[in-house]
Amino acid sequence: MTWASRVDGAFPQPLQVILRGVGQVFFCCNALTGLIFLIALFIGGVAAGAAATVGVVTSTVTARLLGFSKKDIDAGLYGFNGTLVGPCLFLFLEHSPQLWLYVILASILSSVVLAALMRILRPYQVPASTAPFVLTSWMFLVAVYGFESFTRSPVLPAAGIPVAVPGAGRLAVENWPVALFKGVGEVMFADSVTVGILFLAGIAIVSLRGALMAISGAFVGIIFPTLLNANLNAIEMGLYAFNPVLTMMAIGWVFLKPSGKSAALAVLAGVMTVVCQAGLASFLTPIGLPTLTFPFVLVMWMFLFAAGMSKYWVDPDAEEG
Amino acid sequence: MTWASRVDGAFPQPLQVILRGVGQVFFCCNALTGLIFLIALFIGGVAAGAAATVGVVTSTVTARLLGFSKKDIDAGLYGFNGTLVGPCLFLFLEHSPQLWLYVILASILSSVVLAALMRILRPYQVPASTAPFVLTSWMFLVAVYGFESFTRSPVLPAAGIPVAVPGAGRLAVENWPVALFKGVGEVMFADSVTVGILFLAGIAIVSLRGALMAISGAFVGIIFPTLLNANLNAIEMGLYAFNPVLTMMAIGWVFLKPSGKSAALAVLAGVMTVVCQAGLASFLTPIGLPTLTFPFVLVMWMFLFAAGMSKYWVDPDAEEG
Amino acid sequence: MTWASRVDGAFPQPLQVILRGVGQVFFCCNALTGLIFLIALFIGGVAAGAAATVGVVTSTVTARLLGFSKKDIDAGLYGFNGTLVGPCLFLFLEHSPQLWLYVILASILSSVVLAALMRILRPYQVPASTAPFVLTSWMFLVAVYGFESFTRSPVLPAAGIPVAVPGAGRLAVENWPVALFKGVGEVMFADSVTVGILFLAGIAIVSLRGALMAISGAFVGIIFPTLLNANLNAIEMGLYAFNPVLTMMAIGWVFLKPSGKSAALAVLAGVMTVVCQAGLASFLTPIGLPTLTFPFVLVMWMFLFAAGMSKYWVDPDAEEG
Repeated sequence: MTWASRVDGAFPQPLQVILRGVGQVFFCCNALTGLIFLIALFIGGVAAGAAATVGVVTSTVTARLLGFSKKDIDAGLYGFNGTLVGPCLFLFLEHSPQLWLYVILASILSSVVLAALMRILRPYQVPASTAPFVLTSWMFLVAVYGFESFTRSPVLPAAGIPVAVPGAGRLAVENWPVALFKGVGEVMFADSVTVGILFLAGIAIVSLRGALMAISGAFVGIIFPTLLNANLNAIEMGLYAFNPVLTMMAIGWVFLKPSGKSAALAVLAGVMTVVCQAGLASFLTPIGLPTLTFPFVLVMWMFLFAAGMSKYWVDPDAEEG
Repeated sequence: MTWASRVDGAFPQPLQVILRGVGQVFFCCNALTGLIFLIALFIGGVAAGAAATVGVVTSTVTARLLGFSKKDIDAGLYGFNGTLVGPCLFLFLEHSPQLWLYVILASILSSVVLAALMRILRPYQVPASTAPFVLTSWMFLVAVYGFESFTRSPVLPAAGIPVAVPGAGRLAVENWPVALFKGVGEVMFADSVTVGILFLAGIAIVSLRGALMAISGAFVGIIFPTLLNANLNAIEMGLYAFNPVLTMMAIGWVFLKPSGKSAALAVLAGVMTVVCQAGLASFLTPIGLPTLTFPFVLVMWMFLFAAGMSKYWVDPDAEEG
Repeated sequence: MTWASRVDGAFPQPLQVILRGVGQVFFCCNALTGLIFLIALFIGGVAAGAAATVGVVTSTVTARLLGFSKKDIDAGLYGFNGTLVGPCLFLFLEHSPQLWLYVILASILSSVVLAALMRILRPYQVPASTAPFVLTSWMFLVAVYGFESFTRSPVLPAAGIPVAVPGAGRLAVENWPVALFKGVGEVMFADSVTVGILFLAGIAIVSLRGALMAISGAFVGIIFPTLLNANLNAIEMGLYAFNPVLTMMAIGWVFLKPSGKSAALAVLAGVMTVVCQAGLASFLTPIGLPTLTFPFVLVMWMFLFAAGMSKYWVDPDAEEG
């Protein structure tokens, strides 16, 4: 047991579960990591931190009230989607008192959707990951066209017919660190180097391999879109990086037996995530929605399902046939 | 056995199956209920009634010809999607002789899609419900852009980039009953108080709890969109209500063990259905399609799959693992 | 063993696997058929032939490197999606050196997606067919809005809000053969009678029933859209035919026990494919993507899943419950 696990074990029970929920955004079942993430979120912005707190508490309490698996709840699995729903709605919609109601409703739904996806995916032993956050947030964001109580913020991409995005360029060497750390920070919508560094630190205390995969994902999310001449501004803000960060952590560290092969597969998955990011952004342009972390979810699903067909990642004896 | 079941049993076989198919639109396996629904449909409009009749007969006969389960056919399960396909196409497309061919083809396909979804969902013991009707109707409605033989009726939402929908307002007290009953009637596209009352009566003779859930769903579909300042005209026509009506019946009466917990879950699901209604409407705006009953289907699926993970709704011994 | 099987067996191993991959585009596990197809592709255009070659080799090698089933690889199952990805990207994007990189990446991903879909569909014993090609190509095609390195070719449908497509007309008798053979050729993007005839020949040496289903599908893809007054130019180019060609082969020859019933079901499925073609084209209009072979995939999936519920196509003893 590492020192980080011991610190995690020292947190009192309800707080431990909530903070683990925050930590699970980066696959870390550790309350200390969650605490670092939450502090980072508040540094990024008080509204974002508060919304994440409301989200993680709401979604975790919902899971308890609806009678979902205590083991899953205690591992923080019913917390991370709520953690993401809160800051997401506060970033993309204009702030208002009723927005808190909206965050609470969306966090409740995220726990229902998580349980549903867990049930669907159980025979395949593939995780739902942040899909509940994405599906719920998309639904709540796009629904505001119909509700005068809420207003789209200018941060949301404008709805329209997709056109070629100009503005390719070469990232100056001195801007690389900024882009890398922002790429990690953008996983929780933080356009901030400090937040990105704190996120990496929180991951590193749980697993150095995890942190290495995260930073490698950020590299892939800068190098590959630059090669394909994607918009430089988006690359600099880390907007091509936060999805490969998660993909490489999932494939190269969390869900497949760690090995050289898994690391190579993670790089491949990271590259595909960049294409998927650009593609999904175009798919969503007519209704004016952001991709959120769905490029990561889609690519991770494809690679994990596929790994279930490979002699390198399936123990033939353990398989259910 | 209730008197309604005895009346149902008195219908001669082929007629019983067809009428049960109509009754299953509101989850009622009862020929008398189906007869009341069909009469109501004809009161709402002769074309709608005739199209529903053609639809239910076609889809039921198709199921027999394709060799699907006799038990399911006899319960009317292969009838209700056809029942809905007919009036749907007659509402949203301009009337013409060849529209009858289109209704027949769509009703045939609805039975194929139902069998397919039943097969997919069988391991999860979750129903396909009206998904075949929605998927088939969407495909046939959106296909008419390509066929000069058919014309979109002005009732269809115009295709375009989604924009904020104005026109919020407070529903006058005297208009509540109209909105409530129309909300029930709109399940089968009837903008009529009489039809809504007849539908409720047909449900009530099978189950008072079912009728209570239906009217509660209509309440949720008026109160909640009013709270969020949705378009008043849509609320008055019951267009926010018909999906929660079905959701609350499904969750609070049909598919989960009836209890106080299930009723509470049904209210929650009803609220989510309203958000899903507004969201899905925006999703479909670029191609000019209506949501039909898909908000209900999506939310019901999420809640039923999720219930499969809850200690309150799953008998741990009966579970298949 | 037929003479065609003996010729297939005479090909040296690596070449046999690659050519079978090409043959599997039309469900033919035969290297000679694949060779005929490949020659036809080169006749249709050198770039298309070269891109198909790169695609089939890349996707097959990927499957080997990722440790997927040797039996599936040897049957060419990891080749046909790559075969289609190559010419697809070369048809719909402007040619450039970096397009080869794009084809290689997409072919790699197509093998991952195929393994993933195989894993998902395994409990249902339903094939993934060309879904990996379609999903991968869509993603790569729509992603180019974001990458200045690639340019959409004018062959791609323009993105926009869908409107009614004019230009219906009656196909002159002398143009029927052209439309029929082009309909077969368009499965691999070849607007050429010669290519269509060669494709049919390649199928016929494996199975006359297969070739009969293919040409019947082309008939359905001309007669039915003409009846519904679809755009004459599209019909003449075989653009309504290539999907029913595949649907009728899949339902009437490959995946269901061949019988009169299966042939009748294949015609029905072919008709539905035409509606699905027009519908899906409208669905994709806002983002400017072509349907590719997804109408076939969707309809085939629906009919095969549904066949799993029918006493005519399921052996009740063999069923897994």
